[in-house]
Amino acid sequence: MQQRGLLVVISGPSGTGKGTVCKQLLAKRDSVRYSVSATTRKPREGEVEGQNYFFVTESQFLEMLEKDELIEWDKYCDNYYGTPKAFVDKCVESGTDVILEITVEGALEIKQKYPDCVLIFIVPPSMEELRRRIECRATECCDVIEKRLEQASYELKYVSKYDYLIMNDSVEDAVLKIEKVLDVERLKPSRNTEFISSLLSNGR
Amino acid sequence: MQQRGLLVVISGPSGTGKGTVCKQLLAKRDSVRYSVSATTRKPREGEVEGQNYFFVTESQFLEMLEKDELIEWDKYCDNYYGTPKAFVDKCVESGTDVILEITVEGALEIKQKYPDCVLIFIVPPSMEELRRRIECRATECCDVIEKRLEQASYELKYVSKYDYLIMNDSVEDAVLKIEKVLDVERLKPSRNTEFISSLLSNGR
Repeated sequence: MQQRGLLVVISGPSGTGKGTVCKQLLAKRDSVRYSVSATTRKPREGEVEGQNYFFVTESQFLEMLEKDELIEWDKYCDNYYGTPKAFVDKCVESGTDVILEITVEGALEIKQKYPDCVLIFIVPPSMEELRRRIECRATECCDVIEKRLEQASYELKYVSKYDYLIMNDSVEDAVLKIEKVLDVERLKPSRNTEFISSLLSNGR
Repeated sequence: MQQRGLLVVISGPSGTGKGTVCKQLLAKRDSVRYSVSATTRKPREGEVEGQNYFFVTESQFLEMLEKDELIEWDKYCDNYYGTPKAFVDKCVESGTDVILEITVEGALEIKQKYPDCVLIFIVPPSMEELRRRIECRATECCDVIEKRLEQASYELKYVSKYDYLIMNDSVEDAVLKIEKVLDVERLKPSRNTEFISSLLSNGR
């Protein structure tokens, strides 16, 4: 009995290292892939249609929006970006886990549309450590650093709405924890209804 | 920050091998222990007070019942058996996971009193396999075997009320799965409120 894949939404303040964690997770597990977004941005050199993005015209994008074909979307620097429902559904149906790295607002929107999605929040070990990481990485002025920390505090208020909280003090540990979450989510009765039915019908 | 232990309730039809699974889990993990029941039964040779059972008189047991000091209880062959709340609470508060191996009715009763307990249901790979296991083990007549299978079918109807369903087709795998459940349950925001508070207060 083939189980459906999981829709996994990963959020976390900038500086928590969630990008690195996701990349290592994907490198380790063949059954996991990133969601491919649709965008009206022109392809950059080397970008492959259907792999990096689905490249669409503005009118195509607006049509997708109108037909409710996007799970979530945003506009950034005059370009539209969105997550096509069809791609996510196809992956999940074929048993592949799909990762979406998005903001807290987007995550909660998706939870309403896909109640069985898995929300993971990556947190830093402490705010001091987050500041240190942001400062180390920053080429920007103090203002930008303070703004990022403020944004982090804002996002952290949403942690309790997530299913799991994963502290990233070691990338390897964080990846292992996410892998365990993916394994354990598959043990929920709601994800095993076919198997339960078959047990119950044979038991009569 | 010391996390509280988990109250883990394990159920499953007779013949699924849940006893063996629990024993191996306890042998592997020091941070897990069985709940110790209170009983009015006389101690058998070698049984140690507070380790195998808390041995009490009938009037002591009825007093515990009256004072709501038992999480669940039952009467079997003229003796009372019950799970003392104080013992479970003490373990959980010290960070130890406590395992309770009980019936489906008892499990659901505990979920009401302890909403953050973890309900695990051990299932056989199939009803055919369950029948084979019960027949192999049985020294009883056909009637008893049929009654056990009927009881199994009845209990299986409760699976969807549990948090996790673990198929026991290999004891080692089943133990590994339970260990993952224990690890992943600790990642829930509701079990990390102190850590979240400390992050939020430092982020202000």
